[in-house]
Amino acid sequence: MNVTVPGPTLGVVGGGQLGRMLAEAAAPLGVEVIVLDPTPDCPAAPVAREQIVGDFDDPEAFRELASRVDALTFEIELADAALLDRVADEFDLSVHPAPETLETIEDKLVQKRALDDAGVPVPPFRQVDDAADLRAALDEFGAVMLKARTGGYDGRGNVPVTDPDDAEEAMDAVGGPAMAETFVDFARELSVIAVQGADDVRTFPAGENIHEEEILRETILPARTTDAVIERAEAVARNVLDTLSGRGVFGIELFETETGEILVNEIAPRPHNSGHWTIEGARTSQFEQHVRAVLGWPLGSTRLRCPTVMANVLGTVEESQPARLGNVEAVLGDADASLHWYGKEEVRPLRKMGHITLTGRGELDAAAGSDPDELLAHARDVRDALTFE
Amino acid sequence: MNVTVPGPTLGVVGGGQLGRMLAEAAAPLGVEVIVLDPTPDCPAAPVAREQIVGDFDDPEAFRELASRVDALTFEIELADAALLDRVADEFDLSVHPAPETLETIEDKLVQKRALDDAGVPVPPFRQVDDAADLRAALDEFGAVMLKARTGGYDGRGNVPVTDPDDAEEAMDAVGGPAMAETFVDFARELSVIAVQGADDVRTFPAGENIHEEEILRETILPARTTDAVIERAEAVARNVLDTLSGRGVFGIELFETETGEILVNEIAPRPHNSGHWTIEGARTSQFEQHVRAVLGWPLGSTRLRCPTVMANVLGTVEESQPARLGNVEAVLGDADASLHWYGKEEVRPLRKMGHITLTGRGELDAAAGSDPDELLAHARDVRDALTFE
Repeated sequence: MNVTVPGPTLGVVGGGQLGRMLAEAAAPLGVEVIVLDPTPDCPAAPVAREQIVGDFDDPEAFRELASRVDALTFEIELADAALLDRVADEFDLSVHPAPETLETIEDKLVQKRALDDAGVPVPPFRQVDDAADLRAALDEFGAVMLKARTGGYDGRGNVPVTDPDDAEEAMDAVGGPAMAETFVDFARELSVIAVQGADDVRTFPAGENIHEEEILRETILPARTTDAVIERAEAVARNVLDTLSGRGVFGIELFETETGEILVNEIAPRPHNSGHWTIEGARTSQFEQHVRAVLGWPLGSTRLRCPTVMANVLGTVEESQPARLGNVEAVLGDADASLHWYGKEEVRPLRKMGHITLTGRGELDAAAGSDPDELLAHARDVRDALTFE
Repeated sequence: MNVTVPGPTLGVVGGGQLGRMLAEAAAPLGVEVIVLDPTPDCPAAPVAREQIVGDFDDPEAFRELASRVDALTFEIELADAALLDRVADEFDLSVHPAPETLETIEDKLVQKRALDDAGVPVPPFRQVDDAADLRAALDEFGAVMLKARTGGYDGRGNVPVTDPDDAEEAMDAVGGPAMAETFVDFARELSVIAVQGADDVRTFPAGENIHEEEILRETILPARTTDAVIERAEAVARNVLDTLSGRGVFGIELFETETGEILVNEIAPRPHNSGHWTIEGARTSQFEQHVRAVLGWPLGSTRLRCPTVMANVLGTVEESQPARLGNVEAVLGDADASLHWYGKEEVRPLRKMGHITLTGRGELDAAAGSDPDELLAHARDVRDALTFE
């Protein structure tokens, strides 16, 4: 094997914050990035070599992208998998992860079935096409999380249901084919960022995630659980990767039950919000790993450098307005904090506008370093000092 | 004080590797970068928002840059200080560091005089306008380093002279007004990357530099000297900053004499090759510090995260050729190594094409972590495995 630089130009479908951070990570490697996104001057545009403005199902835009790059990937599940496959074929390009993996993951029912069939532990679930199916699910499972099969993210398309009388309303809320999953009374939410490379799979240490209103607020490393649970989480993540094809980074969201069991919640076939801590906290970031993996290059070390907390900067506004983040000296003036601003022109309620990373001390033995509770409190103080003005 | 993001757009005169790494560091902060460089598709171009193609003394190009940015800085000493000053005035923009500082530093004799006048320790030196002056210098100092007053870098324009009979030839070699400096028989070369912010000065820990043929090969952190010498180096760096005006990062090259004395060799009014280790090795990189400083934002922590070695990837070729770096898996496959490729299209003998960074373990107490000698040997092994093909 002989990797050469300058590397290939990478075409990325999607130019949001994930595309932006991919481009940031590609630059030191000598890899250029061209993104495809429908929003002119999308977040990735100023950092990437160029943006092609086009919809995620626009064949001409895909062809223009394909004609100018050496390899294709995507940073959103909304990418049209069949179109990606066709255009990649036409231009004799590789796409990673594989479009069929994207297709499997796009449909939450198909995703869960594939995992279940492979023996990966998942919460009990069933297909729900109508209110009668939903009532049957409630009868079987008690409380359920009703999930739209496609198109949901950050909690959109997810409705908790306990009362059979709410079945019709809940079906209307998800607005289409759905699945119902046992409502897991978890002890903790974890996630593992896993990378499928050309030769091997690597996992970052499991992080602990805190959600509110089903939107990720913070990720804490190391997770505040036992070593045995962390090992189990990483083993399950490896099992998940066995069911998928193509190279790249996958974000694998997990539940830790009260008894320390691990269940797979959801998979993202791309770098994941709960892996943003890796930029400062791991030896190689999830974004650099994705670039390396997609190009078939050797993967980097996933070692945790030090205790780390990532806190999302969400739109704390009542109504949409031009995005200006104030009191930023709260982050910039903190010796342990880093700012990541995504460059979105408009702030909307709970929109992901950026994130901050707090690193603790103690590289040799992360567990012996800063206390994760203190680091989390510190991260929240810094994040909550930020204002939209 | 209330810093807001998105930040200003920063105009950078010069688009080489320093401009590229500045743009990489600006992106997470929400700061966009436009560079001015005469070489179309310069190293910074793919990462920056845009490149304006123009010479470093082209008033129209400077005006175009100024018309599109909110603040100005530069990454090369070749920038025309008077022109920068005039254009900044015309567009009511700040330039940092101050053009008069650039002017002082551009002329090595003026630089040394300013330092000497301020009581900063420098090797004895004198003005050399012709061969007679040079012979007088040799008479006074013994061996000298003859330096062109302007335009020299990476050893170009520097000629060691010991024999008065070589005076004419040496003057021809530097080709213009010069200065002669005592040839310092140093124990070690060190450098301190120092940052002048709006409110305070910060210094990164002193690094140890290894030069060959006057070109930097490696920088080692922590420097393999005594704590007392490191403290003295940082104190001298602070004294140097007192003599300069304007905000920004300065690279201050130092000699440690056999008796542990510190003498200032040269100053660069910009991020410096010997500060590249800060990207992985310090809590905030020199490039992020420069962006923060130029914008008047609070400075970040200069804390050393772990023992770190930076090794330059120089053009190991006999003749210029298209730049393709082979066997890159030597870097990518190493758990402690990072690659930085500058995207230069042509490799030339000893041209700076990229660098690699090796990080050791031991964040809590860097000195107790990996052994710097071993880390240096490791870095050299990795770097020397790279080939141009």
